[in-house]
Amino acid sequence: MSSTDTSPSPNGRVPERWYQSWTHVSVDRRSSGYCRVTFDHPPINTITATTVAELAELVGLIEHDPELNVVVFDSANPDFYLAHYDTEHDPARTAALGIGPTGLHAWLDFLVRLSRAPVVTIASIRGRARGAGSEFVLACDMRFASRENTALGQFEVATGVIPGGGPMARLPRLMGRGRALEVLLVGDDLDGPRAEQYGYVNRAIANGELDDEVEAIAARLARFNHEAIARAKSYVDRATLPPDSEFPPALADFFELLGRPAQQAQFARLEELGLNTDSDLERSLGRRVVDSLPDA
Amino acid sequence: MSSTDTSPSPNGRVPERWYQSWTHVSVDRRSSGYCRVTFDHPPINTITATTVAELAELVGLIEHDPELNVVVFDSANPDFYLAHYDTEHDPARTAALGIGPTGLHAWLDFLVRLSRAPVVTIASIRGRARGAGSEFVLACDMRFASRENTALGQFEVATGVIPGGGPMARLPRLMGRGRALEVLLVGDDLDGPRAEQYGYVNRAIANGELDDEVEAIAARLARFNHEAIARAKSYVDRATLPPDSEFPPALADFFELLGRPAQQAQFARLEELGLNTDSDLERSLGRRVVDSLPDA
Amino acid sequence: MSSTDTSPSPNGRVPERWYQSWTHVSVDRRSSGYCRVTFDHPPINTITATTVAELAELVGLIEHDPELNVVVFDSANPDFYLAHYDTEHDPARTAALGIGPTGLHAWLDFLVRLSRAPVVTIASIRGRARGAGSEFVLACDMRFASRENTALGQFEVATGVIPGGGPMARLPRLMGRGRALEVLLVGDDLDGPRAEQYGYVNRAIANGELDDEVEAIAARLARFNHEAIARAKSYVDRATLPPDSEFPPALADFFELLGRPAQQAQFARLEELGLNTDSDLERSLGRRVVDSLPDA
Repeated sequence: MSSTDTSPSPNGRVPERWYQSWTHVSVDRRSSGYCRVTFDHPPINTITATTVAELAELVGLIEHDPELNVVVFDSANPDFYLAHYDTEHDPARTAALGIGPTGLHAWLDFLVRLSRAPVVTIASIRGRARGAGSEFVLACDMRFASRENTALGQFEVATGVIPGGGPMARLPRLMGRGRALEVLLVGDDLDGPRAEQYGYVNRAIANGELDDEVEAIAARLARFNHEAIARAKSYVDRATLPPDSEFPPALADFFELLGRPAQQAQFARLEELGLNTDSDLERSLGRRVVDSLPDA
Repeated sequence: MSSTDTSPSPNGRVPERWYQSWTHVSVDRRSSGYCRVTFDHPPINTITATTVAELAELVGLIEHDPELNVVVFDSANPDFYLAHYDTEHDPARTAALGIGPTGLHAWLDFLVRLSRAPVVTIASIRGRARGAGSEFVLACDMRFASRENTALGQFEVATGVIPGGGPMARLPRLMGRGRALEVLLVGDDLDGPRAEQYGYVNRAIANGELDDEVEAIAARLARFNHEAIARAKSYVDRATLPPDSEFPPALADFFELLGRPAQQAQFARLEELGLNTDSDLERSLGRRVVDSLPDA
Repeated sequence: MSSTDTSPSPNGRVPERWYQSWTHVSVDRRSSGYCRVTFDHPPINTITATTVAELAELVGLIEHDPELNVVVFDSANPDFYLAHYDTEHDPARTAALGIGPTGLHAWLDFLVRLSRAPVVTIASIRGRARGAGSEFVLACDMRFASRENTALGQFEVATGVIPGGGPMARLPRLMGRGRALEVLLVGDDLDGPRAEQYGYVNRAIANGELDDEVEAIAARLARFNHEAIARAKSYVDRATLPPDSEFPPALADFFELLGRPAQQAQFARLEELGLNTDSDLERSLGRRVVDSLPDA
């Protein structure tokens, strides 16, 4: 433990568990108050059962760290922030995630715990974040996006299923019913300026300035009093967070609709077209998802 | 029935009732998934008891059509989308509309059923939509408006009454309390850019591109799985729609306030100035409604 | 009383109490329907116990005036709208304000009564409004701000406390959770364009046009029917106002956190840096508040 004696925490150390090795993320505890988490799961940062398990471990650390004020989530891949969920042809892996401490399915459990964690969570978005990737950024407290290099969307309805991780609850509370229905039902990508206009993100920032601006905000927050941040956020939580009970029915619908033969066939066509790889399909998924429709 | 044998529906036909003749709208079932409804009630597309009765009939068809995904509402008159309500000097006609299946007054019944219908409803707005015309677009799922040729507003308070068709419930949920109070209390028109800025519409689109953009969205939605659209929308409904009970008290207030002698006199002055005709008053109603005030 | 015989009220007079002398505001009843209130408490329009007492008196007049339609609040100081709260080193003065008719602490009592008053309240913002100054404008019905000369913010968290006058309840309902958390937790100033983009204000207006535009809106509203304004607003109130019970816990937290030695020390440093005076600190408080942090 001697190597951590100089770390800036109340008792002189950041808990060792922060320094474990991770698979799909890298974790950089820059100071006692500030942690940066970088998604790094080549080739396109899909979210898999492994990712969810690691994020669940991470949110447990975040929840119980009285020194930590701010966590920034960014991506090692400038073209993909978090592509979307990938079952890896093995639904059993996802099923094995089970339920979390909130009593919700592991993915929902992670998202609701992240949204209530007593720290400021910031998604610094460069590249594509669709489906579960969008659900992740929506569970963060704030979202800043590259003006020139962002694609956000919920493409699920275009594949005959519905999103399972909460965007029907979160999007309309951010941007109103009309724009949320457009995002959810039309299912196309939103670029940076449109995401800013709709309130999907706090702001779109010039790509070359995004990192510096987010860094300045995080460095500022890192110096603040932890208790003030935690309490102020908790009051906003009470006024804004959907009740946990709003999430599970949509996830159950997602699984039910996904199990239909027509949807299994559509996902097989998407894989043939390049889903889960760094393909033209993935780069233009909002536009090209319709190529997988039966009568395409 | 042979003429419909080739129509793209599950059992080979679109129900014949879709092809009835209509008075204030034209209905074009472009495909099994896509219907376009065009308001056409010269000279300025006022909403009358006849319009409400036809819209109620139409929403019944929409609710029970398992093939239909999207309905676009536009106007045959480029200057007026839907002017506002007109009692035609015969309140008995409006009274005769009675209550609908939801137990609400016919106008409210139509609006809440439209908002919950298991299809995507899109208002493609060119020209003026005030009062009940604005209430109609607010009950649609999405609103796209001509950037150069749109006037949206709730002018009722300027006439000494209040809106009866739900905008006090719907507007603040779209744009927040401050901007909703401005729309409702100041009662002036919003042009396309302002409507977009305030979130009154999803987007203002260059007048020459509005039709193509809405058509592209509708054509895309028409190909999607109906059940996915219906379920995704239903979850947004639960998170966003006002409870039905929020609507009737304001409508009762509208009738009460309208019955006052001062308001009857003000509406008489508005008619003298050109209300319900293609007049300068109607073209600039947000600005000119004050010309009917007692001390004008 | 003869001098008021010609005033335009139902019984020929505006109540005399409107013409009392005020300390931190000037009150100009321009007509029976329209009142302008100008904050004037040099050097920077801090809010003190005296201000709260006068505002409480004023809202009582507003609530019971059946002729009044609109109240515009502006500032005599072009650089400061309402700086923030100042206890004047005498917390007993604030404590002595007690509770108001709603059963809430005097400051909360004033804010919730203002928000429900049966008139249109407009904040015409030029200069800085932070902390309680921001809480005041958020309790008004509409906010119009100078595009070039506005700074809005909640700087409390940066000082180790939390806002006590309701912005955790009001801001997210105006601008959504993500942007509200940024305002509340980062605590920096928002300029006019950013305030407009986030929905903090209805609109940012060119500084040279702000007064004329607000005057035109107020003059229009002054002519409308009082009952129509009051009822329309009351329906928006039901759909949008936080329940009164949402406010007191945060105010109690504010007092608790403020009492900590570390926060007392930080406020002492802020005073050394120029708090409550027309200083560079006050002019750039959002940026410079961090200069008071322990490790600065």
